[in-house]
Formats: sequence, structure tokens, C-alpha cells
Amino acid sequence: MKRVFFNIGELATATGSAAVCGCAQSSVRKLHRAWLLEEDGTILAAGEGAAPDADEAIDCKNKLVTAGLVDCHTHLVFGGWREHELAMKLQGRTYLEILAAGGGILSTVRETRKASEDALYEKTRALMAEMLRHGTTALEIKSGYGLDLETERKQLRVVQRLKTENPDIAATFLGAHAFPEGMDHEAYVDLLCREMIPEIAKDGVAQFCDVFCDDGVFTAEQSERILNAGKRCGMIPKMHADEIKEIGGTQAAARVGAISCDHLSETGRAGMEALRDGGVIAVMLPATSFYLKKPYGDFRGMIDAGVPVAVATDMNPGSTPNLSLPFAMTAACLYGRLTPEEVLCGATLNGAAAIGMADRLGTLEAGKQADLVVWDADNLDQLIYRYGTNRAAAIFKRGARKI
Amino acid sequence: MKRVFFNIGELATATGSAAVCGCAQSSVRKLHRAWLLEEDGTILAAGEGAAPDADEAIDCKNKLVTAGLVDCHTHLVFGGWREHELAMKLQGRTYLEILAAGGGILSTVRETRKASEDALYEKTRALMAEMLRHGTTALEIKSGYGLDLETERKQLRVVQRLKTENPDIAATFLGAHAFPEGMDHEAYVDLLCREMIPEIAKDGVAQFCDVFCDDGVFTAEQSERILNAGKRCGMIPKMHADEIKEIGGTQAAARVGAISCDHLSETGRAGMEALRDGGVIAVMLPATSFYLKKPYGDFRGMIDAGVPVAVATDMNPGSTPNLSLPFAMTAACLYGRLTPEEVLCGATLNGAAAIGMADRLGTLEAGKQADLVVWDADNLDQLIYRYGTNRAAAIFKRGARKI
Repeated sequence: MKRVFFNIGELATATGSAAVCGCAQSSVRKLHRAWLLEEDGTILAAGEGAAPDADEAIDCKNKLVTAGLVDCHTHLVFGGWREHELAMKLQGRTYLEILAAGGGILSTVRETRKASEDALYEKTRALMAEMLRHGTTALEIKSGYGLDLETERKQLRVVQRLKTENPDIAATFLGAHAFPEGMDHEAYVDLLCREMIPEIAKDGVAQFCDVFCDDGVFTAEQSERILNAGKRCGMIPKMHADEIKEIGGTQAAARVGAISCDHLSETGRAGMEALRDGGVIAVMLPATSFYLKKPYGDFRGMIDAGVPVAVATDMNPGSTPNLSLPFAMTAACLYGRLTPEEVLCGATLNGAAAIGMADRLGTLEAGKQADLVVWDADNLDQLIYRYGTNRAAAIFKRGARKI
Repeated sequence: MKRVFFNIGELATATGSAAVCGCAQSSVRKLHRAWLLEEDGTILAAGEGAAPDADEAIDCKNKLVTAGLVDCHTHLVFGGWREHELAMKLQGRTYLEILAAGGGILSTVRETRKASEDALYEKTRALMAEMLRHGTTALEIKSGYGLDLETERKQLRVVQRLKTENPDIAATFLGAHAFPEGMDHEAYVDLLCREMIPEIAKDGVAQFCDVFCDDGVFTAEQSERILNAGKRCGMIPKMHADEIKEIGGTQAAARVGAISCDHLSETGRAGMEALRDGGVIAVMLPATSFYLKKPYGDFRGMIDAGVPVAVATDMNPGSTPNLSLPFAMTAACLYGRLTPEEVLCGATLNGAAAIGMADRLGTLEAGKQADLVVWDADNLDQLIYRYGTNRAAAIFKRGARKI
């Protein structure tokens, strides 16, 4: 069946099937008074002027249409929430006092271990539905709140079950998110490399392997060992790096051939060059910086150095409980000085590339999957500018209306 | 008809009928496993435990219930949008280049002068509906994009027409928002005092009179003259002050007996004391600071000095096109270090007090109007913490469901 989307005020899309950077990142294509034709979930063509005939015609009411957003960095499966930590922090309690009161990441680990798989599934499903309502049609989800094989497996099984609702979910094993309470660090790295990663690989529930490489968490050497163990089991490396301090994460990510390196709010020139030379995508997470009141990172420096930049939410119950990728896009423009075109590329094509889906997602071009959003905005600039409320008016996945 | 709201997980409310500050501001009352009873739009009682009988019973599903939010500072009636200015700014253009390209407040003045009253009405009505969906059940709207009698009147007539949809709208005459292009400053102040204010007063379309007292706009002396002219015509004074620089606005606001003084991101100790001694409410606008990347102001200093603090959006097409008061509340907590209790008070009771509606709005107490929001949040902390998406699940105005 053929479906035509007509009366598109502005169709804004990145172009191509691989992450782009620099000038390319700002050369988003815009069509006006446009149409898009799809058949059985695949885009056939897009153009300006009179729309072609089709079995079904959808009036886009002269509004903005973009590719569905791709949120390439989320921690969406977790037990509990941690709203009381915010309230404590605002009352002036220190991080150590919050830890002493049972807070921090290990409290989410406790809640996630306690939660049943079904309860986690229902909760994550609702969060994913909320993301979809805000324009996110494909996403990545990490484990990392188990820190033991059983719970990490439970989280990743939840992700697998969610794929029956939306096949475009990438699953990432993040056993190396923190050290389990009371366990020797080297012993946990051994456990990850010798037992957990091979078992997860056998389950076939994660395409990517990730590690939190930063000051006080995993060293660059430990991170490299973990990601290499993942690679040997067929998992593609990813990395959290330079959120707190540069400790060589970007260089390690480049050496292991990571597909992306994420956070990077403290990354300097040498780190950017390592990412560029290693062909690593920089995933920037501005909503986390907003919530933690921490530096946003040098988005423009990345682009100037030739690194492709993706933008994601980092949705998690500790450092940024925000599901809206459009909010992160506005923050990336205001605080990272990306242009609206660059941030659209970052939240569609480059996000898709960071989770290995750029061949079929991330742009509105012939041959790509017909995942698209009609926005209650006249143009791309207005989508970024009118922040704070949800501008997604209609959302289509493989051509079918979801919202 | 009696209606009972039952199964309320947390009922959080400020208390009283006048703006509160300091300890009082943080002594929000919370009921758990609670109910609220209303009759014909007025609250009869609220309590914990078994709910009383009523003609209609509404299940709040164990969620948070608060009073409807009161957004006491908006510029909601305007022609056009200014998204291209953001894009230009992000591409590195200076403010002067944007002005030279026809941007800035005077471009909104041109668009507002051009727009028909009906077009402005339909546009503002849609924006108000979007605010309602995010929990705002009462609001203030300023004129100020005409800078001539005819257009200012047109803006205020739009506000009057909107009152047929929602009677709880305060109308503010802000002819002193900027100087008209090419007009001598003193001559415009004369025109405001001698002609525009008396005419607007005769129309009976504005309860409040406001002025933008700041560096490069109206001086403290001019502001005082304008607000005194308003007072003589029966309009209650309000003021924009200390957004750019302290030029004596807070002292002038105190001298004329302003009900509120707004922005205040640059206000120091002496200004705070002037506000306290003058009984002036401080209206803080954190979303504007977020969007402009400017200082947020010293919220805690205000509270410590004994000034009641309200929080509003400042929604306008130039400096912050955000309609969500919950977003401003989260920013006030993160960047102004208000507690969730203080910011709830600021966005309900103190907001209502800043527009003269605290006698009937702003708290969930017997005798007040039954304007309330059921939030998709377990408690007040979670409402502030889960920012970025809309958590309003159901909205009631005088007891009747609106959303």
C-alpha cells in the first residue's frame, strides 16, 4: 500500500547512511511545500510541489516533518525513582550525606534487583510510550543496574521483550556501570570479562558492550580490557568517558574501535583528535549537564575537530530523569551552540549511526524506513525555539500512525 | 452538586490567602491517602483517610494533587514568532546584526500592529489551552507589543475576550515595555501618562499597570511617574526590574506600592530589603535565564531577606518562548535552590497573590475555588524531578474537568 504525506510546510532531513560531521552536519536538506511517498513502510521518494497519488493521503497541515528521533543513549530499565535525592540536595545535603541515607546509584541497583521482570517490563514500556509521544521512534537501552549476572540479564530480557513493540531498540550491556558494593575492583573486572560478558553473549541479548570510564569508576586500562572481552564475544564497544575528568577514555575508545564515546563534557583537543582518528561518534548529553549543573562540553570544538556529534537524553533516574529528546536538542543548541540543522542531524542520522541503524533510519530518503514526525511547528528553527512543551503532533513508524 | 476527589496519593498545598515567605513558604501542608470535597466549584474540605460521600467521585489513582498553577507573568498576546533570531544567534550573529536584520522586540511590535484582533485572539487562545494542558489554571497577560494606544487596546481587548473562556486572567497594561521607534523618550512617557493610561483606564480593560525599568529602557524616575499615573487611574502597579542592571527599580517599586517586582536576576541586598519593606512580591522568571543564558538571580537571598517569592514563565516570543510553568519550577529549584515546597508555593499561592487572586486561588483549602491538577507523579518531589515532559494528567477548574 502506498501512502503520501502532503502539504508538508518544511521537510527537514539529514542525508546519507553514515554519521556526518562539520560542514556535512550543517548541510541538512530542507524541502518546502513538500510531500513524501512511502510504500509498505519504506520511503519511495520526497519532493516539492504537487504530491503524487497514493492509496492513502495524509495532510501535514503545512507543518514541519522530520525523521523520527533516535535516542542513542538511555538507561530506561530500572527499579524505583530517586526524587527524594533531589529534594535532599536542594535542602543542602551533600552527596556523601545522600549516600549515607541510602541514595545514589547503588540504591537503584537494590531496587532493580528486587523488581520482577514483569514489573520492570511494564514500567519501561510506559516510559518508552512517553518517549514516542515526544518524537523518539528508535532508541538504545542499557543495562547496568544489576552489577550481577542475574539482574543484568533480567534488564536485557526486558529490552528484548520491548522489541516486540518496537524492533528499533538497540540493547547495550553495561555491567561496567559501577562496582558492586564491597567487591574488589579487579575481581569485578575479572568477573565481567570471564563470566558475565560471555554469558550475556550466549544469551544473544546485547549487541553493544559499554563501560563507564571515568575518575573513581573504571580506569582506561580496565575499560579497554572489558570492551575487548566484549568484542571477542561479538559485541560492539561503546564508552562513557570524560564526564567527570579526562583519564584517557577517548584514546581507549579509539584503540578498541568503539562506535561511540558518550558524555565528553570534559574532553579537550587531544581527546577530540583521538575520536576523529578512531572514527568514533561523540554522543553529547546536554540534559544531564542541565540537571547536574555541570559543564556541557565543547560541542563546537568536536565539530571543528572533525568528530561527528550525536545528541541523546541519557534518561536515567539519577543524573537526568528527562525523556524528551527535543529538550536535549534545545539545550544542545543553546549551551553547545549547535545550529538547528546540526542538532537535527545529531538526534536522527548520527544517533542512528551510534547504534548501527543508519542504513535504515535517521533520514527521510528513498529506501529508508518511513519513521517520521509531524511537528506542531512551522519549521525546524521553531521546533528548537519553542522548548518546554511537546511539539510532536503525529508520529508514524514504518508508515503507520502510532500517535 | 458535591464532588469528591479520592485516592489522592499526596495532596500538597500552600496555606492561607496572602503571599508567604521564608519559613512559611516552606511549610506547605501535605496530606497522604487523602481526599478533597467540593461543591459547585468551591472547596468544602480536605482530609486523610476514608473519603466522604458525594454525588460524584473521582479516583486520583494514588497520584499527586496540587492547586492549579498560577502563571503571574506572561506576554501571551503577540503577532508572529521569532525563531529565526535564535538560529541567527546560534550561527554567531550579534544582537546588533539581528536588529539590523529587522529582529528584536520592535519586530514583534510590527507584527502585533499588523495582526487583526481575531487572529490574535485565536492564537492566544491556543497558547492558553497549551498552558492549561500543563497545569496552569490562572494567569496574567500583559500588553506591550503595540506601543501605541490602538494596538495596546487591541491586545487588552483580546485578553478580555479570553476571560469568557477563563475568568481567572489578570490583564496588565505594559505600554512602557519599550520606546516606539524614533520617538523621544520623554515625549513617550508624557503620552503614556497623559493619554494612553487614562484611555486604557476608561476602557476598563486592565487592572494592573507595568513598566520595564532597566538599563537602556525606562529609568527609575520615569517608571515611578508612569506607575503613579496608573495608580491615579485605579491601576495597581507592577514592575520589570533588575533584569539587566540595578538602576533603582526595586526602590521605585516599593515607593509606589507595587504588588510585585519581576525578573530581579541582578538584585542585591539593598534591593531585597526595599522589596521586603515595601511588601512587594518578587516574581522570579528562571526559564528566561535558561533561554538567554543569563544569571538566574538570588532566590534564596530573597527568601532569607523576608521577601515572598513567586515563580512564573515570562512566556514571550523573544526571551523565552516556553509555556510550561512546571519547567520554570524545576529550573527554580535547580538554579535558584528553592525546595519543591517553596516552588509550589511560588507557582500557586504567591503567584495568585501577585495578581490579586490569593483570596480565592492558590491553595486547596475550604472556601477556595476548586481549581486543581492531578499529576502523573507520586509526590511533589517527583513532579519537580521528572522534568522535560508534561506530568499533568487531569485538570479541574471550579470542580469541572477541563483536561
